[in-house]
Amino acid sequence: MGRNFLYAQSGGVTPVINASAASVIEAARGQGGKVGRLLAASDGIVGVLEERLFDTGKLKKSVIEAMNQTPGGFFGSCRYKLPDPEANRTLYERLFEVFQAHDIGCFFYNGGNDSADTALKLARVARTLDFPLQCIAIPKTIDNDLVMTDNCPGFGSVAKYVAVSTLEAGLDVRSMAKTSTKVFILEVMGRHAGWIAAASGLVGGDRSEPPHLILMPEVPFDESAFCKAVDQSVKRNGYCVVVVSEGVRDSQGRFLGEAGSTDAFGHKQLGGVAPTIADLIGQRLDHKCHWAVSDYLQRSARHIASKTDLEQARAVGKAAVELAIRGESGVMPVIRRLSDQPYRWTIESAPLARIANREKKVPKKFIRSDGFGITPSARTYLEPLIRGEAYPPFDRNGLPAYLRSELVPMERKLPDFSI
Amino acid sequence: MGRNFLYAQSGGVTPVINASAASVIEAARGQGGKVGRLLAASDGIVGVLEERLFDTGKLKKSVIEAMNQTPGGFFGSCRYKLPDPEANRTLYERLFEVFQAHDIGCFFYNGGNDSADTALKLARVARTLDFPLQCIAIPKTIDNDLVMTDNCPGFGSVAKYVAVSTLEAGLDVRSMAKTSTKVFILEVMGRHAGWIAAASGLVGGDRSEPPHLILMPEVPFDESAFCKAVDQSVKRNGYCVVVVSEGVRDSQGRFLGEAGSTDAFGHKQLGGVAPTIADLIGQRLDHKCHWAVSDYLQRSARHIASKTDLEQARAVGKAAVELAIRGESGVMPVIRRLSDQPYRWTIESAPLARIANREKKVPKKFIRSDGFGITPSARTYLEPLIRGEAYPPFDRNGLPAYLRSELVPMERKLPDFSI
Repeated sequence: MGRNFLYAQSGGVTPVINASAASVIEAARGQGGKVGRLLAASDGIVGVLEERLFDTGKLKKSVIEAMNQTPGGFFGSCRYKLPDPEANRTLYERLFEVFQAHDIGCFFYNGGNDSADTALKLARVARTLDFPLQCIAIPKTIDNDLVMTDNCPGFGSVAKYVAVSTLEAGLDVRSMAKTSTKVFILEVMGRHAGWIAAASGLVGGDRSEPPHLILMPEVPFDESAFCKAVDQSVKRNGYCVVVVSEGVRDSQGRFLGEAGSTDAFGHKQLGGVAPTIADLIGQRLDHKCHWAVSDYLQRSARHIASKTDLEQARAVGKAAVELAIRGESGVMPVIRRLSDQPYRWTIESAPLARIANREKKVPKKFIRSDGFGITPSARTYLEPLIRGEAYPPFDRNGLPAYLRSELVPMERKLPDFSI
Repeated sequence: MGRNFLYAQSGGVTPVINASAASVIEAARGQGGKVGRLLAASDGIVGVLEERLFDTGKLKKSVIEAMNQTPGGFFGSCRYKLPDPEANRTLYERLFEVFQAHDIGCFFYNGGNDSADTALKLARVARTLDFPLQCIAIPKTIDNDLVMTDNCPGFGSVAKYVAVSTLEAGLDVRSMAKTSTKVFILEVMGRHAGWIAAASGLVGGDRSEPPHLILMPEVPFDESAFCKAVDQSVKRNGYCVVVVSEGVRDSQGRFLGEAGSTDAFGHKQLGGVAPTIADLIGQRLDHKCHWAVSDYLQRSARHIASKTDLEQARAVGKAAVELAIRGESGVMPVIRRLSDQPYRWTIESAPLARIANREKKVPKKFIRSDGFGITPSARTYLEPLIRGEAYPPFDRNGLPAYLRSELVPMERKLPDFSI
């Protein structure tokens, strides 16, 4: 019998991270005697440190099928950046005690940049210690900002949600514009890269259609040019739909969402670039505005997941297990695009050393020359990623039949440890 | 050949108002010679005043089918309250000139309270003038606040969107709560009545499940009780999901969303009760918060429409035409619930005089004794309204195949008139 594997989820969750988890479980089961047990940690690396583990062998097939269709992180995720080995030896000693106690031969970390970094650090320390541990990162981020992969599992579904929402809200605003709302602003995620906002551009065929303006962090916000463009759209089209990344900054590099808005007590308002822009339009143009902030709704909207995205989330899970069986470590399965039309892709493997702590922004060639839209080549890149629907089953009461069962943790073998 | 009918859309649009429109068109076509042409006005009563009309006879069957599946108001809507006949005679003279010029025998106004009021005023003036015009209101409002009807077309789909979003975001927050976000706030529509927020309560089975707290305008906001309840949920469940109506007020009747928040220039911030509450939690409890404002997204989300709602939106459209053929005026087709289990309903007719300018709030018996949730009887009422899915067709590019065609207005017969 092979040694045990350990799977954990990290960073902001996505509509399809559990599909990767389900796929890892299924692939590990399919390996017969080559894999011992597949364990899963609660709350990412934090649950490894605290030895809060589950035995996925206890999960019924129906639970795994439901996991495949459920948003959020079923095992719990974390935002926790592992310090350098030199800075905190105790943490690493504890991690390897846990790996040893449970005979873990391979650790899968399902996340983005930070998680690739964690997996890489662990792979390196294991090598230094001569500890037989493989570390494999499984890509997942709605931000689509991992390098070495054509796109990131999780992004396609959020892109689809944002594009569908932009199309729908655009039809709403158009209906109302004669006597009421003229400008609608949708704030989407993307602190450093504008991929999600860019995806809304899949809706409009030309500048007369929503979204009339897209604001991405890659383009410094120019208040005058923006207000002029909003006003022009209202004059030409009767209304204006704006999609804005939360991470848009002014020319001094300050986040617009933190641009000095204070409440009655003098406290800074929490986030919100959409209300900031609505306020600006109200002051400078006097157009009636509405704004929406989709926040977690966009990244948990499994009900409108992209079928392409779901397939890719599953493919990287399966590939991770195959890489493990082949004895690889310090790698990540990545998506390579083979052709745009027809859209074809395959899974390859890339070294974590070339992925960790790097960031892929929206390239210049994808941004329209005025900075407020996307180019045809961006459309060619983005379009296949939102293709296909993958509806979850619905209960007879009208709600998706998502997995809500509680897990029973394994018995612990080590003394308490709390981060 | 019968006289012509005129259809118009009014007030905030819904995911299914166009289904009512499509149903009116289909029903009128089915009447053979009893109905002349069915015209539609652009932008509600404003388009009637300005004689901006379309001949729906020119619409192909495929367009009408697509209309049935498209959110927003296809013909354009308006926010325009007709003044009293005594206050502005010119407006009424103009309206009746338009009705006469186009031989309109029946006017259908598809909207909420204000639109019922408009239809009633026109019915009364027609009677006074001895002008042969029937006026029939067709119910539509996401607010679910019309009296005399068990529920309102448009509400069920928004309720489904909000319940699904709450379920999904709840799974997300639960995944992150160990090391990151502890409290999530979703702001939904409902200026005077909390029906939409109440619908989120369909998700949770007990107080351990999201939404842990619902804030409705029917319950004055008690800051201390609320903060205590949030803290308790975080302690017991690890996290807290709050769904709040935009119209929540404090004990002095002031909207929370306008509670003195100002920007750097000293201007009042536009709306936003969710950020206000997030700020409060940040100050008083120091829990990490995330918040979303779904705004127009909720009321245009045709992709997650309720099948029940769609059927009812179509049924009131058809019934309106049948009422017209029977010679009725000053009425509205309404939904009567025949039984909860199995859910059965029928369409009846109610006089506008008993509907216009009234408002149905969430009754006490639907609100949990602590004011932060719904009761089992609310659940019995709400649940059938979100039942069933009614997905629009999707294009191969991954977006819903919504109707986007432009209409060609009819030639005008009267001089210019602008409101």
